[in-house]
Amino acid sequence: MSEAAAKALDAADSLARYRSRFALPEGTAYLKGNSLGAMPLPVDDTVRTILDQWRTRQVRAWNEGWYDLSRRLGAKVASLLGVEADEVIIGESTTIAWHKLCSAALEAQPGREEIVTDDLNFPSDLYALQGLARQRGARLKVVPSNGIALPPEGIASALTDESGVLALSHTAYRSAYVHDLETVQTLARRRGILTVWDLSHSFGVMPIPLREAHADMAAGCLYKYASGGPGAPAFLYVRRDLQDRLANPLQGWFGHAAPFEFEETYRPAEGIARFLTGTPPIVSLAAIEPGVDLLAEAGIEAIREKSMALTRYAVDQYDALPDAGELALATPRDPEQRGAHIAFTHPEAFALSRALIAEDIVVDFRAPDLLRMGFAPLTTRFHDVLRAMDRLASMLASGEHRSIQVDRPAVT
Amino acid sequence: MSEAAAKALDAADSLARYRSRFALPEGTAYLKGNSLGAMPLPVDDTVRTILDQWRTRQVRAWNEGWYDLSRRLGAKVASLLGVEADEVIIGESTTIAWHKLCSAALEAQPGREEIVTDDLNFPSDLYALQGLARQRGARLKVVPSNGIALPPEGIASALTDESGVLALSHTAYRSAYVHDLETVQTLARRRGILTVWDLSHSFGVMPIPLREAHADMAAGCLYKYASGGPGAPAFLYVRRDLQDRLANPLQGWFGHAAPFEFEETYRPAEGIARFLTGTPPIVSLAAIEPGVDLLAEAGIEAIREKSMALTRYAVDQYDALPDAGELALATPRDPEQRGAHIAFTHPEAFALSRALIAEDIVVDFRAPDLLRMGFAPLTTRFHDVLRAMDRLASMLASGEHRSIQVDRPAVT
Repeated sequence: MSEAAAKALDAADSLARYRSRFALPEGTAYLKGNSLGAMPLPVDDTVRTILDQWRTRQVRAWNEGWYDLSRRLGAKVASLLGVEADEVIIGESTTIAWHKLCSAALEAQPGREEIVTDDLNFPSDLYALQGLARQRGARLKVVPSNGIALPPEGIASALTDESGVLALSHTAYRSAYVHDLETVQTLARRRGILTVWDLSHSFGVMPIPLREAHADMAAGCLYKYASGGPGAPAFLYVRRDLQDRLANPLQGWFGHAAPFEFEETYRPAEGIARFLTGTPPIVSLAAIEPGVDLLAEAGIEAIREKSMALTRYAVDQYDALPDAGELALATPRDPEQRGAHIAFTHPEAFALSRALIAEDIVVDFRAPDLLRMGFAPLTTRFHDVLRAMDRLASMLASGEHRSIQVDRPAVT
Repeated sequence: MSEAAAKALDAADSLARYRSRFALPEGTAYLKGNSLGAMPLPVDDTVRTILDQWRTRQVRAWNEGWYDLSRRLGAKVASLLGVEADEVIIGESTTIAWHKLCSAALEAQPGREEIVTDDLNFPSDLYALQGLARQRGARLKVVPSNGIALPPEGIASALTDESGVLALSHTAYRSAYVHDLETVQTLARRRGILTVWDLSHSFGVMPIPLREAHADMAAGCLYKYASGGPGAPAFLYVRRDLQDRLANPLQGWFGHAAPFEFEETYRPAEGIARFLTGTPPIVSLAAIEPGVDLLAEAGIEAIREKSMALTRYAVDQYDALPDAGELALATPRDPEQRGAHIAFTHPEAFALSRALIAEDIVVDFRAPDLLRMGFAPLTTRFHDVLRAMDRLASMLASGEHRSIQVDRPAVT
């Protein structure tokens, strides 16, 4: 019965046809698009184009599309974010982009030596902030959540007149909790605090109210729901009226006003390009475009609608378990406060994740005890969710996952 | 006569056979391998392998080669540098790598607030140092050269007890002057100064005495003579006994001791991996391997020998000009002090470069008045050099380049 219901949901899904635009075997329930999105089929062509240019035009290709790529793809991401084309650019890794923005924000706030974040933030972001605090003699205040959520009032109570920068992940990588960006941004602005948002677990699965909130800065990963490929360079956003007030802490020629004049003294480019540093990795950059195009074609409102239906469906399956045992939902129950993944805690989360993966149900483990399922709306079917939840339930009942002997791999 | 001589040199060249391992049309005299090396033919395969893994294994491929790629390719570069495998790693862009090392060096030298560099250094390196000086309240001392060279005694006289970091390009991007690394390194060590070398214009064309000099740190570009592809991630080297004394200023999860434990507090990895930051761009990274392999196969001593013969040949052609007019050699005459490119100054350098490129003699212009010819030893033929020098001479005699009307492109 429930399988028929899942198939009916798939049949009624207006986004179902997008799955065939990605490389995914029919039998794979790929629930890790929150970690690395599946490959859009046109990536073969966009990458081959770069190699053909390198082959036939060599360095001349820099004037035949490569030099503009960071900005041109940035404009496409901007469109998906609902901000201006010249407010977004793509260059280095997410952590480097995050570091640039947080460091620039801190430098723009003399006398305010405190950086505020929370314990829901992605560890790499915390590591960057810890390093920044050490180097600048700043203080890092980590606001504690309840492990799943942190409402705006929790953040409000942590902000003081010494707070210079508020740096948060919009959607929490563990619980999928989504901060109320508009409310938090308003709280910060009232106190003269600059905000930096990590949009990695939000971009490509929901509208993000950067414009409505008049948000300051943001960075985001493009290899998750945007399917930009392994280690895809990240985007960064800086609101236009802030761009000239901020200094890129990692100055380099691609952020110079005239890189090929080879001046001895740094002069920042006008606008968003000043946040570039070195030469961007063009082959990896080229792999980003098809995924971003597919998101734009499907439309972010329709994507969010399906995303909420998918997570709601998973929670319904969980709630219907006759005995959940130690499997605890670690995700907000309100769909409005929830991103595109579902997290459970379980003491045997690692073994469960390996047992599911062995059956081509690709899920995610986050130490020490978290089992995540990410539902990229363009590639996830309702019956994939059902299959994962059904097998999870039967494994918990049988204990069969306990017989799996796998060493912890480098990447989980 | 001279054409026959050039062909004879090509016929006797033991490295001549390598040109067919790269994508380069027969009729192209490609003298810009110092800017972007030609594409090694196996790049098609290494890149396709990554796309196939992404297609068929998705995120699981991280445990099937991707996660080790930075380190595995770093070990190959280390071998070419003559240092230990765990002293080199590949991650972000050259300027980011440079920034990390210079910033880490400065932090390790409390009370020594001066960074010393020279005016031969690549502008992007200078921009990074200017930003670092501003943020850290350090002083940047730029030692003036004569425009072409700066002997060790010139550097020695600039070093003081307040100098903490000496940051130089090993081979100058304009003049091709090669610093005496061993002498300069010794000078710096005697004064307790840490050195950071930019090897971008040296790597892949000459042995670099990092080990002999007990050199401290280095970074280098892989898209020039190593043919790693447009915007290829750069390598960085830190001598093993220094690694634990230095802190990566750009902390991120890939430099953490256990990235997939998702600890809240940064703990640097043991060894060279601590200098990584974000997720490396895997597709671009994969394009690096064939070029590095070709360098290793050809052997760096043989490459240097041919390189010196090529630049000597070009200088001989220049010296044989009946009337060089305003064309001035801007490169050291001693082959030992010279990298793999030749530079000339001329007031019409830009027009000359465009006129040569229009005939598929791909040379290089560097504002305001520099004409460069880079001789990547694995792809440059002696008759390419002759053709370029002959046409340069005839253009200067006829003035025909003056009729070329081309706007300055973004990338020159």
